[in-house]
Amino acid sequence: MSLPRGFPDEEYHARLARAQEMLAEADLAALLLTTEPEIRYFTGFLTRFWESPTRPWFLIVPVAGNPVAVIPSIGQALMSQTWITDVRTWTSPNPADDGVSLLADTLSEVARSGKVGLPDGSETHLRMPIADLDALKSKVGCTFAGDAGIMRRLRVIKSVAEIAKIRHSCDIAGRAFSRMAEIARLGVPLEEVFRRFQMLCLDEGADWVPYLAGASDPDGYADVISPATGAPLAMGDVLMLDTGLVWDGYFCDYDRNFAVGTPSPLVADAHARLIDATEAGFAAARPGATAADVFHAMDAIVTGGTGTSEVGRLGHGLGMQLTEWPSFIPEDQTPLLPGMVLTLEPSIEVGQGRFLVHEENIVIGAEGASYLTTPAGRDLPVL
Amino acid sequence: MSLPRGFPDEEYHARLARAQEMLAEADLAALLLTTEPEIRYFTGFLTRFWESPTRPWFLIVPVAGNPVAVIPSIGQALMSQTWITDVRTWTSPNPADDGVSLLADTLSEVARSGKVGLPDGSETHLRMPIADLDALKSKVGCTFAGDAGIMRRLRVIKSVAEIAKIRHSCDIAGRAFSRMAEIARLGVPLEEVFRRFQMLCLDEGADWVPYLAGASDPDGYADVISPATGAPLAMGDVLMLDTGLVWDGYFCDYDRNFAVGTPSPLVADAHARLIDATEAGFAAARPGATAADVFHAMDAIVTGGTGTSEVGRLGHGLGMQLTEWPSFIPEDQTPLLPGMVLTLEPSIEVGQGRFLVHEENIVIGAEGASYLTTPAGRDLPVL
Repeated sequence: MSLPRGFPDEEYHARLARAQEMLAEADLAALLLTTEPEIRYFTGFLTRFWESPTRPWFLIVPVAGNPVAVIPSIGQALMSQTWITDVRTWTSPNPADDGVSLLADTLSEVARSGKVGLPDGSETHLRMPIADLDALKSKVGCTFAGDAGIMRRLRVIKSVAEIAKIRHSCDIAGRAFSRMAEIARLGVPLEEVFRRFQMLCLDEGADWVPYLAGASDPDGYADVISPATGAPLAMGDVLMLDTGLVWDGYFCDYDRNFAVGTPSPLVADAHARLIDATEAGFAAARPGATAADVFHAMDAIVTGGTGTSEVGRLGHGLGMQLTEWPSFIPEDQTPLLPGMVLTLEPSIEVGQGRFLVHEENIVIGAEGASYLTTPAGRDLPVL
Repeated sequence: MSLPRGFPDEEYHARLARAQEMLAEADLAALLLTTEPEIRYFTGFLTRFWESPTRPWFLIVPVAGNPVAVIPSIGQALMSQTWITDVRTWTSPNPADDGVSLLADTLSEVARSGKVGLPDGSETHLRMPIADLDALKSKVGCTFAGDAGIMRRLRVIKSVAEIAKIRHSCDIAGRAFSRMAEIARLGVPLEEVFRRFQMLCLDEGADWVPYLAGASDPDGYADVISPATGAPLAMGDVLMLDTGLVWDGYFCDYDRNFAVGTPSPLVADAHARLIDATEAGFAAARPGATAADVFHAMDAIVTGGTGTSEVGRLGHGLGMQLTEWPSFIPEDQTPLLPGMVLTLEPSIEVGQGRFLVHEENIVIGAEGASYLTTPAGRDLPVL
């Protein structure tokens, strides 16, 4: 619990240096960033205020020199506590000109007639009105292009300090999962289990609980993204909770399954095979392997090697967001590198349209993977 | 607590009918929607899975006929529980083609060579990679334009059933605020207050707590969007918590201030004036008035009528999102109409760079506003 919040400035200097090397290589004069994790990555600007969609926020990361924040005045006090010194503000919301002119002036000063990179690839979006992007383009001398995957290449490798925060989040969730018997038993409505589990996460030290999904059904569940219903836990159910809680801006993302009463042999066997698949994924997840290799190691066990997955993938990156690149799918040839933090998330069909999912979090080291979670055993814990 | 979850199908039929009237008027063949509230507005598709940025989701709302969902296969089971019957899926993530071809085919079928509206104005964004939008444009015969403000015009007026859900969220937060003395007292670290307050919200029935901000400082706070620090509540502090909790997909958004020990006369007086300003805003918030009128009614009290606000505005809409249109600013001439749900959120400067904020939630009726929250009194409650 004594892990410090935030990062020393050196962390941000190192991120910036790596970014600027990539910018130069890609012949980009600057990055223009608009989303929470992108802006936080370079600044440390941490707030839950992004929940409000009203105001756009901008960060310019130039190929040389320090980042420039162009933000609503409501963020000035907080941004001024970060290492960023060039903070330009406007009073937002302003329907006539919500930062576009100020951003245009700043871009013209920083990027001149150069090429500005906007993240445009998988798992990205632009967090500003698209009419404002058109207006911006008409006001500046620079041109716009993609970011050449720079944000992805930067964020996919976590620093030692980032890994410590993710591990801390995993530990919090682990303590909450170990207290499941306090809140989940025969007859308790699933929505009550959801509420009480979030309370356990907070009680164990989570800053907040952005994500919780789950299900409780006999012989596997049909869905892993639904909100809870009022249906009470029933004898023979398998209960799954999948949580993404946050500590100091870093997520864990993993699930646990529980049996309400004695599990059916079908469910017990499926769970054991999920754990086997997770262990196979863990063994395959080492430098030199690709994301696809890890998929195939798990897929061999959960489907016998059909090469497909109902939920679309068998795990993914995580960090400042609940899910990040890469994906454990046959098409993702991303080489695994030390510092990648990943989830192993095999799913297995139990019956027609019913399945089980299991998930652990790992980090890639020079010699192979290490668990950030305390891995579950093959036997389903019984509530 | 017996309020039903979800809406009867008639709610969605009515939303669609209003949308189609506006689409015809704007000469649009369809809307293309990509964000959580936009898609949920027409479908009822409710999940916390949007926390994952990985997969794009699409809904096409044609000028005639029913909406068509074009979504990742992971969402099929849940979308099939809604009233939407035309659900087309692809296996996502797919880095080579993440739904773009399927979306292009569907748009070509539904909108042919017509004009498709994308929300592009204030407080909107497009939740898909911008490279994918470019790819989409090259694959279809239709053209793209803005949505002529249709989504805003639809969502800004809440139905009776929506208002009931927002009121339910307000009630939950109200019960949590009434229990503040259980968790907040001299010496308790602010981050502990944040965690415990979220637990109270859950204990009182919140599905989840997407937003919590606050501060505890003597003589007003410098910031209302910062995360909590480990600093303990100190004698003479004014503690503010601002919460956006959700029940069945609908937010409340309001704050309360508390004094740790006896408040200074400066703070006590500022709080009383904030309540006066709120009441003035309440009285001004009636059909026929504009958002700007409500701003000026509050501004006359908190600044003497300078026409500016440090935080940018003195309140806003709310509903499926923490903050929505309109804004209480001098520039927003939106006429207030029955069914609008709004926050009155005056802020007042207490000293150089220090201020207090107060917030209530209201709904506009035919005769004027009603409170959805139980309005606070002029005296600061003492912890």
